[in-house]
Amino acid sequence: MRLLHSMGDTFAVMRTLEQAAPATAVIVGAGYIGLEMADALATRGLSVIQMEQLPEVLPTVDPALGALVHAELAGHGVEVLTGTTVRQITRAPAGEAGRLRVEATAAGGKAVMRPADMVLVVVGVRPDTDLAKAAGVALGVKGAIAVDRGMRTSLRNVFAAGDCVITHHRLLGESYLPLGTTAHKQGRVAGENALGGNREFAGSLGTQVVKIFDQAAARTGLRDHEAAAAGLDPLTVESEADDHKAYYPGSHRIVMRFTGDRTTGQLLGVQLFGHRHAEVAKRIDIAATAIFHTMTVDAVSDLDLSYTPPLGSPWEAIQMGAQAWLRQARQH
Amino acid sequence: MRLLHSMGDTFAVMRTLEQAAPATAVIVGAGYIGLEMADALATRGLSVIQMEQLPEVLPTVDPALGALVHAELAGHGVEVLTGTTVRQITRAPAGEAGRLRVEATAAGGKAVMRPADMVLVVVGVRPDTDLAKAAGVALGVKGAIAVDRGMRTSLRNVFAAGDCVITHHRLLGESYLPLGTTAHKQGRVAGENALGGNREFAGSLGTQVVKIFDQAAARTGLRDHEAAAAGLDPLTVESEADDHKAYYPGSHRIVMRFTGDRTTGQLLGVQLFGHRHAEVAKRIDIAATAIFHTMTVDAVSDLDLSYTPPLGSPWEAIQMGAQAWLRQARQH
Repeated sequence: MRLLHSMGDTFAVMRTLEQAAPATAVIVGAGYIGLEMADALATRGLSVIQMEQLPEVLPTVDPALGALVHAELAGHGVEVLTGTTVRQITRAPAGEAGRLRVEATAAGGKAVMRPADMVLVVVGVRPDTDLAKAAGVALGVKGAIAVDRGMRTSLRNVFAAGDCVITHHRLLGESYLPLGTTAHKQGRVAGENALGGNREFAGSLGTQVVKIFDQAAARTGLRDHEAAAAGLDPLTVESEADDHKAYYPGSHRIVMRFTGDRTTGQLLGVQLFGHRHAEVAKRIDIAATAIFHTMTVDAVSDLDLSYTPPLGSPWEAIQMGAQAWLRQARQH
Repeated sequence: MRLLHSMGDTFAVMRTLEQAAPATAVIVGAGYIGLEMADALATRGLSVIQMEQLPEVLPTVDPALGALVHAELAGHGVEVLTGTTVRQITRAPAGEAGRLRVEATAAGGKAVMRPADMVLVVVGVRPDTDLAKAAGVALGVKGAIAVDRGMRTSLRNVFAAGDCVITHHRLLGESYLPLGTTAHKQGRVAGENALGGNREFAGSLGTQVVKIFDQAAARTGLRDHEAAAAGLDPLTVESEADDHKAYYPGSHRIVMRFTGDRTTGQLLGVQLFGHRHAEVAKRIDIAATAIFHTMTVDAVSDLDLSYTPPLGSPWEAIQMGAQAWLRQARQH
């Protein structure tokens, strides 16, 4: 069993794949990294079983989109066991298929067992703060290192950035939200300030995307329950649009979930699901840029976005999603 | 000979293609529509000759990117004659190849003749204002109908929108810039105001994209000479980035040209060229959304954009282009 953490762990996984040539893998966890591993291992020809404790995969998006990811996994032969809590991973007794056995409890309490040649545990991230704690640095939310917007810790001339620190969220304030994009930005701010600069980390919107076989799922900003917990007045509306004019060959449907504030009209969050060639990743970035500037849902239709039939529509999908939200918001 | 104007003209072109089965086509003009026609006709199996009066194709982007479009056309068998002014289109004499002959003058004054079964003239757009003029409506730049931001003409209760009206440009003010996206937005504003609303057209940034065979070229905002003519202090910097992590299969290079103001640091314009699966269209939209909000080039790096290796990089290409601009701007 191996926790995926450092690059060395990845090399160890690669070595195992090459030398031990496992036929089956159990992946514990169905977040971003777990899904990427399922995609990669299934593409390499392994039989993959994905176990997730929560009721749906990719719990960082709404279950309606998680279900679409689930279907994509299943469609590529991954056995997906949601609502399933792993209890024990042991060496398989002699004569049993696989080198390991994974014992779990399904939603109704039923015992589940799967043999596996390889088990990956991908169940989340904890800040690694031993060094900082030993140095007496103050910690914040979820035990991450407390930093100001300039990435300064509580110790003079000590800066911190990345997965070990708290992250300023533009809509939520202090949060723990470790992401590679954020780490890059925070590192740049810390470096510039360590050299005497005075830059501030502008904040995260939790913008994320993951490819799962031929599909991609993306989000930015807040989901309904996150906005409600933050005291906002959210409404979330699902709609669909073509990635480009359907009369032009090769178009794909995009499922969109827009979350806006009914009181202020502000765009709070967007979630997208669609084909990996449906430009879902950069479409979420259009939404992220709009939310960065605290646009209203209505104002999204004012953006001058590009159009050509093979690559879009005169109203960009993001604008159609915004218009669908407005139509429903007016009925409430 | 036929000017491409209405949907009926398109149907007429389709009928000619089906009934007369032309083997060769000359396309006069190499703007967006001319390039789309070259792509479409070559894909149908016709021999295509493209004649453009200006020194490079797609003159709405910088010649450096136009040259890349030119190479893509040539790579797909289109004969591209730039710097070539068409003088005469006549019926071919009996015994000559093709039904028509196109006579032109090349850059050095040399006479050029090409036989063709079909000729398309795609040389730009003029506002169609006969009805408005007859009604006494005031006209503006390039003879287009003058409208305010609410799409009101000089006549009470008469609204106008689309290719026949002047367009408010967010960086240039009054312009003539007929585009489908703009027409949709203006029509919505005109419709809402005609029903007693009070909405304003937020303005264009001239955001455009065109697919040429396997590549796409896009622009938003101002190019260097446009910014200089508007009294700004532009610098344009070309750079390249991968559309996604090069270690992940199927990556493509994107050529980027960023124009920013040296005095204010403001992002003025972006031009992109890359594979049609390199998400160039939506990347230009990220830039368009940034320019809409008058972001500085430096602040583009603050945007929280999505990342996963098959679809991007921790610094989105648009952010890398912004950083390349800053590095060069600091040296001036």
